[in-house]
Amino acid sequence: MTRSASSTPPRVCDADAASGPPARLGSLTAVTTRVLIRGTGLIGTSLGIALTRQGYAVSLADPSPTAERLARDLGAGELATEGDEAPDVVVVAAPPDVAADVVIDALATWPESVVTDVASVKGVVLDAARAAGGDLTRYVGSHPMAGRERSGAGHARGDLFEGRAWVVVPSPESGASAVATVTDLARSVGSAVTVMDAQTHDEAVATISHLPQVAASLVAAQLRSLDEQALGLAGQGVRDVTRIAASDPRLWTQIIAGNAGSIREVLGRVHADLGELLDALAALADPDDAVGSLEVVNRTITHGNVGHARIPGKHGAGPAAYLPVTAIVPDTPGALARLLTDVGEAGVNLEDLRIDHGLGQPFGLAEIMVVPAAAEHLQQSLEAKGWRVLD
Amino acid sequence: MTRSASSTPPRVCDADAASGPPARLGSLTAVTTRVLIRGTGLIGTSLGIALTRQGYAVSLADPSPTAERLARDLGAGELATEGDEAPDVVVVAAPPDVAADVVIDALATWPESVVTDVASVKGVVLDAARAAGGDLTRYVGSHPMAGRERSGAGHARGDLFEGRAWVVVPSPESGASAVATVTDLARSVGSAVTVMDAQTHDEAVATISHLPQVAASLVAAQLRSLDEQALGLAGQGVRDVTRIAASDPRLWTQIIAGNAGSIREVLGRVHADLGELLDALAALADPDDAVGSLEVVNRTITHGNVGHARIPGKHGAGPAAYLPVTAIVPDTPGALARLLTDVGEAGVNLEDLRIDHGLGQPFGLAEIMVVPAAAEHLQQSLEAKGWRVLD
Repeated sequence: MTRSASSTPPRVCDADAASGPPARLGSLTAVTTRVLIRGTGLIGTSLGIALTRQGYAVSLADPSPTAERLARDLGAGELATEGDEAPDVVVVAAPPDVAADVVIDALATWPESVVTDVASVKGVVLDAARAAGGDLTRYVGSHPMAGRERSGAGHARGDLFEGRAWVVVPSPESGASAVATVTDLARSVGSAVTVMDAQTHDEAVATISHLPQVAASLVAAQLRSLDEQALGLAGQGVRDVTRIAASDPRLWTQIIAGNAGSIREVLGRVHADLGELLDALAALADPDDAVGSLEVVNRTITHGNVGHARIPGKHGAGPAAYLPVTAIVPDTPGALARLLTDVGEAGVNLEDLRIDHGLGQPFGLAEIMVVPAAAEHLQQSLEAKGWRVLD
Repeated sequence: MTRSASSTPPRVCDADAASGPPARLGSLTAVTTRVLIRGTGLIGTSLGIALTRQGYAVSLADPSPTAERLARDLGAGELATEGDEAPDVVVVAAPPDVAADVVIDALATWPESVVTDVASVKGVVLDAARAAGGDLTRYVGSHPMAGRERSGAGHARGDLFEGRAWVVVPSPESGASAVATVTDLARSVGSAVTVMDAQTHDEAVATISHLPQVAASLVAAQLRSLDEQALGLAGQGVRDVTRIAASDPRLWTQIIAGNAGSIREVLGRVHADLGELLDALAALADPDDAVGSLEVVNRTITHGNVGHARIPGKHGAGPAAYLPVTAIVPDTPGALARLLTDVGEAGVNLEDLRIDHGLGQPFGLAEIMVVPAAAEHLQQSLEAKGWRVLD
């Protein structure tokens, strides 16, 4: 059985269907339809909803009868039963610390099925599967980078993967058709696929994802004992730096433990940099001892400038590709909508938007990012319509 | 001479003048009008523009003739000359590392004037002024928390202080009328005034402002050597954590050096926490040695949860006061404006907005924060208008 080639892409909004997501590659090729999802937390349930919408026949299994029934009730698929046909693909969406065991079990239980897992760390799963002597030609790791600050089936949503990166992680043993099957599945739910081996993946996420999480948590932890008046000085900087400090400790404990080697390497470098900065700050107390200290402080900030400038912008554009136009927006219903309507009427595409709230004031600042060629025109257009635009 | 009681508050946008900023307290009381601003960088020039608009008579002085003329041309005031009347207030907006010397000079040069400075660190300025034997009854420190990622008069704007915190920092010697004068000046440019002594201030900003800056810079520095494919996995987490890593190294070197003691204390605690985490990660490599290691990892994230939950929300509201309603927005001109127009037509006030861009996809997610009572109604209203709203 193949998926219908006539399945339509999801609608974005009636007025803009023509500019919605591109037709799925999956709808053009004959792909597997029976997917068994083992583990119905946030990712498993969301994936079940998304695949069901795309015409896949999804069955669900979870050690918790309550969890699998909740996922079914949310539209993620049917409950798996003993008499089911063998699945074409098994997606292991179990918690990271048991993912390897479930992958090994799935490879043994379904000797023809392609098996993937969605754990955020790939080396430990691959090593365990290899040690268990499983048929690795049928195993291809996955990492859909679509976590949320919340977890559990109750927060699942079928659009969780749309527009997100999904890293496909083949091993040297993986068969080409298994890689193609997993790639197609990822694309069918709207993800942008990147292919990496397990070690490259784990080192990459240690720096780009796990380090920021640890840093945010360590900074936020220092706010526990801060008094109320000091907390009242919190600006956009500390809010941005600590936003992901709200993440789930149970999940992150497993992720960090599962990628301990790579994380330790990058955290070790940060620890050394921080130690050097602390020595410089101590030396500053004694002018005779302070030679070179300011260089260390300055280098800390300068190196941050260089690293920050390398983060790609929206849709992969260079980070310096846009200019901000900042307008003052009163805190009244519809004010921001009127501003953006006026932006649209100026014929300018908004590339990004940041709202910066004042403290105890009935308005905020809207920083509208646009291509440089449009900035001056937009400023003039908005001013002509009565907006206060900052120079 | 007093400021005119009839000065009008700044206009926000013609349609919303009635909901603009409240009339300034300063317009109701007799306040000083002659302000000398020494130092015409971003803060000094912005303050000159703001005070001039509010009816103050502002004169400008900077060691660089080019800088002070640029500030004048931007509308920040007139150039100070030798024959000028004595100012009622001197605002020292020199770089942090020379602020103390300029404060000492101003107290001596103008024996009747109130003197304030806007350096981000207050203890060093006060200590130096006290050591120099200046008349501290007339000195009151200030810290307008209104920095930008950019610096220099060219980025100045008259609205820089609106809605921002301005910490007024009296010493035990400060006279009550000097404190009132500086407080009034801060309020007249739209700031929300908080009063703290110098040590309390310096400790507070070490944690709430300087620590996040150092953390962002240290994380971003690790991106310098990351390969392009790994950088391509950058999600909203690392972007948020490193946004302020783009800050000015020259300014931040002075701030960190000027508050080395307090920063060293809080960074030392973070360094110890990080060291403990590194030990736990090392122990995880050896199962026999790993007892207690997971507790350390879990505690790192849990303590971050607790600290994060203490950050006040918009306008001082509790952090959990709003619920998100998330809609999919196509990347076409005017789409976001249409969405927000529909939000406004639903009669719902948008409390905050976050745009989350997909990777390589022609749309993004708009997370609209609203009061809990409005969330379900908003979701239904938007869906009725054809928007895809995530559950």
